[in-house]
Amino acid sequence: MMIVPVILSGGSGTRLWPLSTPERPKQFLPLTTNRTMFAETLARVADRDRFAAPVVVCGESHVAHVSADLALLGISDATVIVEPAARNTAPAIALAALAVAQDACLLVMPSDHAIARPDAFLDAVTAGYPLVAAGHLATFGIEPASPETGYGYIAAGAPMGDGGVRAVRRFVEKPAREAAQAMIDSGGHYWNAGIFLMRADSYLGSLKTHAPQIENACRKAMQAATTAAGALHPDAAIFAACPSDSIDYAVMENAEDVIVVPVDPGWSDVGSWAALHAIAPKDEAGNVVRGAVTLVDCTNCFVRNETGEMLSLLGLSDMAVIAAEAGRVILPLARTQEVKRFAS
Amino acid sequence: MMIVPVILSGGSGTRLWPLSTPERPKQFLPLTTNRTMFAETLARVADRDRFAAPVVVCGESHVAHVSADLALLGISDATVIVEPAARNTAPAIALAALAVAQDACLLVMPSDHAIARPDAFLDAVTAGYPLVAAGHLATFGIEPASPETGYGYIAAGAPMGDGGVRAVRRFVEKPAREAAQAMIDSGGHYWNAGIFLMRADSYLGSLKTHAPQIENACRKAMQAATTAAGALHPDAAIFAACPSDSIDYAVMENAEDVIVVPVDPGWSDVGSWAALHAIAPKDEAGNVVRGAVTLVDCTNCFVRNETGEMLSLLGLSDMAVIAAEAGRVILPLARTQEVKRFAS
Repeated sequence: MMIVPVILSGGSGTRLWPLSTPERPKQFLPLTTNRTMFAETLARVADRDRFAAPVVVCGESHVAHVSADLALLGISDATVIVEPAARNTAPAIALAALAVAQDACLLVMPSDHAIARPDAFLDAVTAGYPLVAAGHLATFGIEPASPETGYGYIAAGAPMGDGGVRAVRRFVEKPAREAAQAMIDSGGHYWNAGIFLMRADSYLGSLKTHAPQIENACRKAMQAATTAAGALHPDAAIFAACPSDSIDYAVMENAEDVIVVPVDPGWSDVGSWAALHAIAPKDEAGNVVRGAVTLVDCTNCFVRNETGEMLSLLGLSDMAVIAAEAGRVILPLARTQEVKRFAS
Repeated sequence: MMIVPVILSGGSGTRLWPLSTPERPKQFLPLTTNRTMFAETLARVADRDRFAAPVVVCGESHVAHVSADLALLGISDATVIVEPAARNTAPAIALAALAVAQDACLLVMPSDHAIARPDAFLDAVTAGYPLVAAGHLATFGIEPASPETGYGYIAAGAPMGDGGVRAVRRFVEKPAREAAQAMIDSGGHYWNAGIFLMRADSYLGSLKTHAPQIENACRKAMQAATTAAGALHPDAAIFAACPSDSIDYAVMENAEDVIVVPVDPGWSDVGSWAALHAIAPKDEAGNVVRGAVTLVDCTNCFVRNETGEMLSLLGLSDMAVIAAEAGRVILPLARTQEVKRFAS
């Protein structure tokens, strides 16, 4: 088994404002470690006994960040595909699928998610591989920890072979809280983490069936692609005409042969400062602190200071304080999803 | 009646950190208006039909601030006395008393207090004047609004003449809360605001009786004083030998003939950010905001940003956020007296 990692670098950079910005979105920030989320994603699939050289799909403005992380990890044989425009995940994955051998198996991953237990994740990849090699499209289902309303859910159907793999009965996008809770209570429902395992030809075949315009535009854009500074540039004019859609809407919700591999790898999409606080190492009082900060009598706070100025906090509980070049923000941890109001 | 204002500029600059610093303590900050507290104190007694040219007693490092405010108010005939060392209020007032005609009446005022109703204050000065002219030492007693434990209290005795003036029965320094509450409940007790009205000769005579070393050191230091750059410099070596003591301990608590003039002039010693929040104009949600600040859903907050950087706050209640060159601090309004922990 040889798998090609496909790393998607999208994201607009407002949820972790003021650290994340359009110029440096979440995946290019060191959040859970001293390496960027993008570098951590690369490192997770860097074992060349199991994985081939990675394919990265990113926007023009992020090529420098991508190159820096590839260099940091000593990866010189990656294929970097520069999207001429943002067209969501279905076209981005199609570009990658068109750049590799058609019988290659793609492991498609967002570059801005945290995975605390990479071994569990890799075991799930192994579990899904035989059915994928036989033509199935696999998605990874995360054991849901709470009735989140911002995620897509996967309803699992009949068991398929070993390793807990199951058929997908249906996808449910961003349910109401009651519906989310009902799915959790009934069991057999998973969060859709946007991680996929599938053969290039399986994906492109399904895309041609369910979203032929996307498949056609991507194929032609790749046929007319040019190479510059070591990166592949699909034809901009052709790609601009490509419809924008997610792999979930364009393919997964319509395709037959979709399977789900349940996994509990300590996954987080780090979708807010509170989410980062939840997964980060804490001091005895539950604080997560980074940068020049003096804390007195603070509990359960997230404090990150990227400026050189000392920040002095006293008597705070359940607060997030983030200071960076782009802004300084203070708000309750419970409301950190609202920072995007300040991002401009 | 002609009264010489004596304005004392002491203070170490830790209670309103990070705005107040040793280089620019509270009296040289614009807190309640766009002028400094020192300038507001000068302005309060600037009416030349009632007051003579002021005497300012300050440290060497604050002469520039004093000069700037005197210039701002167009006062060119002030006497500026530079204390060679900090020796508390009894010596500072003695220096001033030795610089004026001995039958002059001194109105001694700290330079870092806020007075919302200056007319009430000036009426109290008028009420106290006849007994002071006859030799009494007058202190002004502020109607206590709460059982503060950080203030001195004045227990009033028998009425003395008109205008509510009373003899002083005793002084009580920084009482326990129960004792403070008992004084408020029993009536006839006032906060000692450190504002005094007395003839120069009365004060010096009483000082000679109760603290002869202070009187002697100050007299000799003034006899050997030099003038430089428009300011009077008492002899440093002589003044260095002067004991350090407050007017309250050295004179008021021992002297006969001390009277209290009750007054309710909307007084505040602005002893914390919470105290400034209490007296400052607020928006509809109870916030006091100054500087580059964006507030969303904040109530009863004090926010002051002296930096050029935008500060974004969301969902905060009863908090103080102060950003200045010397530091950035965030803490509950109820604990703002603790900012001094960060001042270094």
